[in-house]
Amino acid sequence: MTTQELVAQIHKKKSFLCIGLDVDLNKIPKHILEKEDPIFEFNKAIIDATHHLAVAYKPNIAFYEAYGIKGWESLEKTITYLNENYPEVFTIADAKRGDIGNTSTMYAKAFFEDLEFDSITIAPYMGKDSVEPFLAFENKHTILLALTSNQGAFDFQTKDVEGKELYKQVLEVSKSYENSENLMYVVGATKAEYLSDIRKIIPESFLLVPGVGAQGGNLQEVCKHGLNNQVGLLVNSSRGIIYASDGMDYDKAAANKASELQKQMQEILNTAK
Amino acid sequence: MTTQELVAQIHKKKSFLCIGLDVDLNKIPKHILEKEDPIFEFNKAIIDATHHLAVAYKPNIAFYEAYGIKGWESLEKTITYLNENYPEVFTIADAKRGDIGNTSTMYAKAFFEDLEFDSITIAPYMGKDSVEPFLAFENKHTILLALTSNQGAFDFQTKDVEGKELYKQVLEVSKSYENSENLMYVVGATKAEYLSDIRKIIPESFLLVPGVGAQGGNLQEVCKHGLNNQVGLLVNSSRGIIYASDGMDYDKAAANKASELQKQMQEILNTAK
Repeated sequence: MTTQELVAQIHKKKSFLCIGLDVDLNKIPKHILEKEDPIFEFNKAIIDATHHLAVAYKPNIAFYEAYGIKGWESLEKTITYLNENYPEVFTIADAKRGDIGNTSTMYAKAFFEDLEFDSITIAPYMGKDSVEPFLAFENKHTILLALTSNQGAFDFQTKDVEGKELYKQVLEVSKSYENSENLMYVVGATKAEYLSDIRKIIPESFLLVPGVGAQGGNLQEVCKHGLNNQVGLLVNSSRGIIYASDGMDYDKAAANKASELQKQMQEILNTAK
Repeated sequence: MTTQELVAQIHKKKSFLCIGLDVDLNKIPKHILEKEDPIFEFNKAIIDATHHLAVAYKPNIAFYEAYGIKGWESLEKTITYLNENYPEVFTIADAKRGDIGNTSTMYAKAFFEDLEFDSITIAPYMGKDSVEPFLAFENKHTILLALTSNQGAFDFQTKDVEGKELYKQVLEVSKSYENSENLMYVVGATKAEYLSDIRKIIPESFLLVPGVGAQGGNLQEVCKHGLNNQVGLLVNSSRGIIYASDGMDYDKAAANKASELQKQMQEILNTAK
């Protein structure tokens, strides 16, 4: 998917909501556990109920790998369902991969070609030759971890590196990578006050912003500092939406929660015009 | 596996060789492609031919994920084969994972409990709460990326962070993590000259050293600076061993290459006594 198509979808749906499909069998409604593939059934219902409110879906790959081959099957069915039924939706493999060149190429093929995700999250620690293999794929997007939403972000990411915090070095240095126009960045909603500085370095790039809701991030603050002239934000909520209810009505409850966020986003988009 | 068991195995086999099982269907002998599960057949033959020369095996997870469900099946069969037939061997899931707490716990369960790997490689960028969930598993080992063997390592890892290179900060800071005795570290063989400094910070820890062979690292240099009083090194070779021949004799050729390295290691261990 091109960035232009993503932006068009955002304006059409008046939403920049990304829904995280972090499916934990201990947390989904009990009645689904009887189904042959509970994870896929759960995802399918959530997607069907929310696709008009969200522009992106982000399966967290850990939650699938944790169930081995069965989990991998659920992931394949989920991404195939999305691509076949809602091809306008932007898909993110939240994998946080990153390895030396030939290995990164293997990961890129797995997620971009075989599973046909539009994008993947990548850790920057190993540098240029671990990131560029992902950037080589046309109309695919590499979402580099910059400033994450967790407490551990302060261990290294905010440390001063030659006069500038490490996450700013990541933003600066990655701009010089080949095909850097295919880069997006992860910036946690819990660190919204950093977004003004971040926008000075990467005014045009899309940001994937996790941490709104369960992790305590604030949507208005994120938008105040993070919006750009093509919106430039994908704000993710996972647990706050998909586990809104553990009853028979879980899909409707998820849609209600998604709708609340979408309405706030619509208002923000209208005001920003 | 405990560290003591690993050290005992090293002394018994007079080897600290780790063999990387990075199986690419384009590189393995053509006659194996006819088998039902070529990746597993290839691994099984390599393992059977080399298990007396190596103390550890390291499947690179990307190479399995690249083949989707089939690849995941090959991985499961490989680790089960290792655990059932060669339980003395140390197994490493070269996954380079790292995510926020609850997600890291999912990855840890997947690799430590379901697949029963002894260890996993982890990226440090997200800090403490992304690493500690792995460290909580008893007699399991978390191998943190410190200084990697690729060129991109110079993008961030060697940058000065508050008076010290980032990789040294990673070593220092991670020592304060809970259950840090379960930490090992990745240090590329291509940067052997850095090992003396590294040993000053983490004299006791085991180091996983990739990059000997195909990537140009030198075994003698690595040992000169990296050996400690319980050996403390696992030196990995992947392509140099497993692709030694693409003929019918590939397993024997791999054993020959592994034997060459084991003999050098035996000499080094004898001299170091």
